[in-house]
Amino acid sequence: MIVEQFFEDYEIGFTRRTFGRTVTEADIVTHAGQTGDFFPHHMDAEWCAQQDFKRRIAHGTLILSMGIGMTAGTINPRSMSYGYDRVRFIRPVFIGDTITVTARITERRDHPKRKSHGVVVEAVQIANQHGEVVLACEHLYLVERRGAAP
Amino acid sequence: MIVEQFFEDYEIGFTRRTFGRTVTEADIVTHAGQTGDFFPHHMDAEWCAQQDFKRRIAHGTLILSMGIGMTAGTINPRSMSYGYDRVRFIRPVFIGDTITVTARITERRDHPKRKSHGVVVEAVQIANQHGEVVLACEHLYLVERRGAAP
Amino acid sequence: MIVEQFFEDYEIGFTRRTFGRTVTEADIVTHAGQTGDFFPHHMDAEWCAQQDFKRRIAHGTLILSMGIGMTAGTINPRSMSYGYDRVRFIRPVFIGDTITVTARITERRDHPKRKSHGVVVEAVQIANQHGEVVLACEHLYLVERRGAAP
Amino acid sequence: MIVEQFFEDYEIGFTRRTFGRTVTEADIVTHAGQTGDFFPHHMDAEWCAQQDFKRRIAHGTLILSMGIGMTAGTINPRSMSYGYDRVRFIRPVFIGDTITVTARITERRDHPKRKSHGVVVEAVQIANQHGEVVLACEHLYLVERRGAAP
Amino acid sequence: MIVEQFFEDYEIGFTRRTFGRTVTEADIVTHAGQTGDFFPHHMDAEWCAQQDFKRRIAHGTLILSMGIGMTAGTINPRSMSYGYDRVRFIRPVFIGDTITVTARITERRDHPKRKSHGVVVEAVQIANQHGEVVLACEHLYLVERRGAAP
Amino acid sequence: MIVEQFFEDYEIGFTRRTFGRTVTEADIVTHAGQTGDFFPHHMDAEWCAQQDFKRRIAHGTLILSMGIGMTAGTINPRSMSYGYDRVRFIRPVFIGDTITVTARITERRDHPKRKSHGVVVEAVQIANQHGEVVLACEHLYLVERRGAAP
Repeated sequence: MIVEQFFEDYEIGFTRRTFGRTVTEADIVTHAGQTGDFFPHHMDAEWCAQQDFKRRIAHGTLILSMGIGMTAGTINPRSMSYGYDRVRFIRPVFIGDTITVTARITERRDHPKRKSHGVVVEAVQIANQHGEVVLACEHLYLVERRGAAP
Repeated sequence: MIVEQFFEDYEIGFTRRTFGRTVTEADIVTHAGQTGDFFPHHMDAEWCAQQDFKRRIAHGTLILSMGIGMTAGTINPRSMSYGYDRVRFIRPVFIGDTITVTARITERRDHPKRKSHGVVVEAVQIANQHGEVVLACEHLYLVERRGAAP
Repeated sequence: MIVEQFFEDYEIGFTRRTFGRTVTEADIVTHAGQTGDFFPHHMDAEWCAQQDFKRRIAHGTLILSMGIGMTAGTINPRSMSYGYDRVRFIRPVFIGDTITVTARITERRDHPKRKSHGVVVEAVQIANQHGEVVLACEHLYLVERRGAAP
Repeated sequence: MIVEQFFEDYEIGFTRRTFGRTVTEADIVTHAGQTGDFFPHHMDAEWCAQQDFKRRIAHGTLILSMGIGMTAGTINPRSMSYGYDRVRFIRPVFIGDTITVTARITERRDHPKRKSHGVVVEAVQIANQHGEVVLACEHLYLVERRGAAP
Repeated sequence: MIVEQFFEDYEIGFTRRTFGRTVTEADIVTHAGQTGDFFPHHMDAEWCAQQDFKRRIAHGTLILSMGIGMTAGTINPRSMSYGYDRVRFIRPVFIGDTITVTARITERRDHPKRKSHGVVVEAVQIANQHGEVVLACEHLYLVERRGAAP
Repeated sequence: MIVEQFFEDYEIGFTRRTFGRTVTEADIVTHAGQTGDFFPHHMDAEWCAQQDFKRRIAHGTLILSMGIGMTAGTINPRSMSYGYDRVRFIRPVFIGDTITVTARITERRDHPKRKSHGVVVEAVQIANQHGEVVLACEHLYLVERRGAAP
C-alpha cells in the first residue's frame, strides 16, 4: 500500500503496532547462513547450556532486521530510510519467543545540509511475549518537504 | 577462534579488513523472506527500472547484517556486542556488487553505570568494489575490565 | 492490518492490485527445495534449451503460492480462505519475469450447508510484465454473515 | 524417470501413494519467506494460542505445493500439468504433522478446443498421520492423443 | 519408489544416469549458508576475477551432495549408504554449469566383519554440460545378503 | 584469515578442534531441498518411528558438508582441497545432536604426477555431544612445495 506523506505530515506521537512473530530455530539458522556468523551463542546448544543464558540466542542483527521488516507495511514515495541511531540489544531473544514491534514518531528535524528534505525519527521498540523490550532503536527517515523543488 | 581481550587490551587504531563478498540476487530474496520486507525497491525489477536508481537495491538491514557477520571472526569471551550507533546507509548496493568491511577500534570509554565493564567502539565501514563506502556505523562492545570482580 | 468485513460487506466488483515481484532463479531453486519437484523443466537449463519453451520455467505451484501471497495484505477476522476453483496455468513464467496480481470480488453465494457463513469468490489474475495473464484462479473465502450466532 | 503415456494409456482408477513427509516449522518459515504471507495464523505462536486452532497452522499453498511436489516422481513427455479444480483446505495442518498423498486417475475427457490432446483428471488427496484428509483437489493434465499430428 | 534388492541381486555393470541440474548462484549461496564456508573462491566475484579460474566456483561438498542426491531415486530397504571412497574434485564447477550423474555398479565384496551383509560399490561420475567429469567417487552400500538371519 | 603454508610447513600431528554446532531440523530440511533427497529416513517422522533408529536422521552428505565447512577457517593460498578418502558414516546424527570436528595432519606424501606439489592428508573426525565419532574421513590437500616453479 502506498501512503504519500510529506515531512510536514508526520505527526509527533503517531504510533503503530505490528502483529507478533515467533522467532524460530529456522530463523536463526537462516540468519547464520545469510551472515556467516556461526558463533556458538547462536548455533551450539551444548555450549550455551553452560553459559549464563543457558539457551541459544538470536543474533542481534536478526532481531533488528526482523523487527524493522515487520514495520515495512506501507510505502511512502516521499520518504527514504537512511539509518538508525542508538540501536541497543537490551535482552536476549530465545528460540520460541514472540516479538512485537511498536514504532512511534518522536521527532521532526531539519537536515543539516538538504533544504528540500527533513529528518523524521521513529522510535522503534521490539518487545517479547512478556512485554519486555528486547531491542530499541531510532529509525531515521529522510522525507521530502512539501513544495520542495523536485 | 577464541582471543581473550580485556577492556584495557583494546588498542585505539587497531584495524582489520575482511575478505569480500558479492551481494547476490539470492541474498536479497532470502532477506526479504527472512524479514517480510518485499518492497518493490528490492523485489520488482520493472518498477525499479523507472526509479532514479534503475535497479533493485539490497535492503539496508541485509548489508548491515552481512557486513557485521563478516567481522564475526574471533570470539572474545570478555566482550559482548550491545548495539550500534550512527548506522548510515550512504550508497545503494546493487545485485553483483562486492562488499568488504573495514573495522577500526576508535574509542574506549567508561560505561555510565557498570564499573566492571567499559565500552569499546569499533568504527565499521562497508565499501563496494569501487572503494566507495556504502554503509557506516559504530559497533559498541561491552568489555570486562581486567581485575573486575567476576 | 486488520479490516473486519462480514459476508454482506463484500462488494461485487471491488478490485485490488498488488505491487510487482520479479520471479528469480533463487525463487525457483527454493521452491524445488521446498516441494521436492526437481523436474528438468525447472532445473536443467541445457535440457530446456532443447524444448519449445527454451528456458527454465517456474513451477505452477510457485506462481500460485507467490501470487496468492502477494494478495495477503490485510486480515479479516470474519473470513477464512478455504480453497481455489479453476486454477489454470495459462502461460509459462520465466526467470526474470515480473508478476503483478489483480483480485476482484466476483460473487457472493450461500454456503450449501452452513447458514452462519457465505462464500465470497475473488477472481485472481496473475499477469507478467507484458500484461499477459499467466495464471488465473478463483479464491474462495468462507465469510461470517452479520448477526450470525457466534 | 521418464514414462511415456498417451491420453489413451491412462487407466481410470490407477492409484499411487507417496511416502510421508513431516511438515516442519522450517517449512512454514520458508513458505512465508517465499510468498510474503506472514499472517499470524502461521507465524505467531502467542496469537494462535488464543484462537480456536491453538497452534500455528501451515499455509494452504504450502500443503498444496508440497503435496503436488510429492507426486512429481516420473516425467511423461506427452503430458503437461495445466491446472487444478476444486482445491479444498479441509483440515488444518500443524507443525509436526506428517502428510501422505494419494492420487487416483478419475477421468479422461475431451479438450473443448484441442483435438490433438485430451484432459486427464487425477484426484489428489493429502492426508495427515491420523488418516484424515487435509486437502483435496483435482489435478488436470493436458495429454497428447496417440497418433496426433506432432 | 521402493525396489528391494539383496546383495546377490546387484549386477556388476548396471548403470543409471540422472537428469541434469543447473548449478545456480543460489545453490552456492545456500551451501555457504548451510556449511559456514564463505571462502572467497565461492563468494567473492572480484577476488575470483584475479585468480586462474576467473569466476566463483561451487564448493566441492555442494557438488558431491547435489550429485549424490540426484541418484537418490529409489529406496532399497535392504541397503544402507555407509560411505564414499576416492572422492576427487577433478574440475571446477561454475555458476550456470549443468551437471548430470552416471552411477555404475562396479563391485560386490564381502564385508570384513559382518557375515549377514556385503559391500556393493557404485562408481559415481558427475559430468558437466561439456561431458567432462567434474567429480568422481565410489559410493559404498552395506547390503543384506539373501537368507541372512534377520 | 590467510595463513600461507607450503607443503614442507605442514607438521604431522598438528591438530585443531572446532566449536560445536547443533544439527537442527531446519538444517535437514534445507539439505533435502538443496540435494533433492527427500527419503523418509530424513523427512518422515512417522515412518522413522517404526524403524530401528526411531527418529529422523541427518543425511550423510549434510554431516560431511557441515563438518568440512566447520574446518574452513583459514585460507592457505598454496593449498587446494582436492578430495576425500575413506568417508565413513559411523553413527546416525539426530535432530538436536551437537557435532564438533577434530582435524589432524597425518601424512605428507608425494603426488604421483606433479613434482611441484605434494599431498597433505588431514584426518577429520566428527563427534557428537557424547564424544562418539559419527563420521570420519581423510581430507586431501594438494599443496605447493617451497621453491616450486610458479
